[in-house]
Amino acid sequence: MAEESVSAAWRCAQQERVEQALSAWVSADAPAGLGEAMRYAVLDGGKRLRPLLTLAVSEAVEGAPEAAMRAACALELIHAYSLVHDDMPCMDNDVLRRGKPTVHVAFGEAQALLAGDALQALAFELLVPEDGSVVPAMSAQLCRQLACAAGAAGMAGGQAIDLASVGTALDRAGLENMHRCKTGALLQASVMMGAATGECDAQALRSLREYGGVLGLAFQVVDDILDVTTDSATLGKTAGKDAASDKPTFVSLMGLASAQSCADELLAQAHQALRQSGLAQTENLHALADWVGRRAS
Amino acid sequence: MAEESVSAAWRCAQQERVEQALSAWVSADAPAGLGEAMRYAVLDGGKRLRPLLTLAVSEAVEGAPEAAMRAACALELIHAYSLVHDDMPCMDNDVLRRGKPTVHVAFGEAQALLAGDALQALAFELLVPEDGSVVPAMSAQLCRQLACAAGAAGMAGGQAIDLASVGTALDRAGLENMHRCKTGALLQASVMMGAATGECDAQALRSLREYGGVLGLAFQVVDDILDVTTDSATLGKTAGKDAASDKPTFVSLMGLASAQSCADELLAQAHQALRQSGLAQTENLHALADWVGRRAS
Repeated sequence: MAEESVSAAWRCAQQERVEQALSAWVSADAPAGLGEAMRYAVLDGGKRLRPLLTLAVSEAVEGAPEAAMRAACALELIHAYSLVHDDMPCMDNDVLRRGKPTVHVAFGEAQALLAGDALQALAFELLVPEDGSVVPAMSAQLCRQLACAAGAAGMAGGQAIDLASVGTALDRAGLENMHRCKTGALLQASVMMGAATGECDAQALRSLREYGGVLGLAFQVVDDILDVTTDSATLGKTAGKDAASDKPTFVSLMGLASAQSCADELLAQAHQALRQSGLAQTENLHALADWVGRRAS
Repeated sequence: MAEESVSAAWRCAQQERVEQALSAWVSADAPAGLGEAMRYAVLDGGKRLRPLLTLAVSEAVEGAPEAAMRAACALELIHAYSLVHDDMPCMDNDVLRRGKPTVHVAFGEAQALLAGDALQALAFELLVPEDGSVVPAMSAQLCRQLACAAGAAGMAGGQAIDLASVGTALDRAGLENMHRCKTGALLQASVMMGAATGECDAQALRSLREYGGVLGLAFQVVDDILDVTTDSATLGKTAGKDAASDKPTFVSLMGLASAQSCADELLAQAHQALRQSGLAQTENLHALADWVGRRAS
């Protein structure tokens, strides 16, 4: 098999494992339809980029597999809850996500709100298994990393900046800051939580942090490019929304060609960071960077 | 001083400490107004029952003070976020809370949604301080307890049952189950997280769990009584709402007099559980039970 097929096969195998783990951990048992709404929000969709990053880094640092899968799924639950809340009428008011009606369309607004809330709690619950299959000190560190990335200094803060930025003249630094919080923090945490499942020297940690940071930004630049170049059916969500809602994007700020160069440059930095990490097994991390940079949806 | 004044003085002193800790930990720094919305949701209000329970239990088990205060505040943050989301138009659509306009009235719905989300994340962040002032294994256990109490099998699940119960003929068992999840789980967790900050034998743990359980139920029965016997100004929230919205309550189910007897009976059970705990310093826990059972708002 060519190198690219090998990494694609790894990716598919891991996506399958993540799907099974999520299906086992997000139970339908939650009362009064809540469990169904939670499963609807989480299962059968998404690229699982955050879990893949965590699992690939954990492999690279020879981390604990159980901790890695729990961290991977916890990150995906946080991501999923943020989409549920972000799609609600008082936020982006979106009706389509991963090619399906959004959670509030399918289950009502109140249930969507609660499903998001419960998914966030479940993310932390996953990190501290009752059976002791994750060392308590590792559980504690993973909880801290996830909480910091999800909270006011990370994802939630980035969404607040996003809300406040509609119709304003955010410059490139402002736009980067917003995305560094809104999506970057959780993507970087996906990398660093993978690292926390194993042993890692300071140089490797620095390099992985750099990799996670530039990859997060590259992800967003590509997102902005796809928003104007791709249709809703391919994206699985409403295309052209940013322009329609007058939100600043990398494309609106620097034009399509420069945005593409910027994405290429960030990808090159991601690969460079991995080469400087001193880690041996980084093929899947290199491949994930290319996957992020060259994706079509 | 009479015994009652001593416990009132302890309560006021602890409420003051909790207020200061919350003010220090819920920073105004969060971007784009998010920090202000979070502080508005948390500070200058509320009985701080959950923190008081945690601190009193921690004293009774000679627990670690730093862990106890962090657990106390984490519980209050979860409680505060649940109120913010619960008050939103898609849930209870309430405009008055603790005598002030609700968060979505003051800051808009989107910011209220994000503030609640960020408060939940902050709760877990508090439990794992970066400076190592809480032992990692204790942090991990506290995170697990909080996540379980807040999530689908606890508070969020209870709210889903509550949503589904409007206009239905919930019987007493169904009503108790709803409240055991909706408010009881977090109140019981307040007790058990206090216990987790110290050493506790099996008998004490069993008794504290019983105390937390019956106290949580007593709290709700009294809440239902106050909803029909007290005005909005005294409650600091809209009175008479349950009857108006056709929600089943202990009063609607068993009548006012029986609800009062039920509350008295639950209080007696709470005191009994404390006596059986084998713990020495339980005066403040006895006093908190009376405070819950005899409160006027």
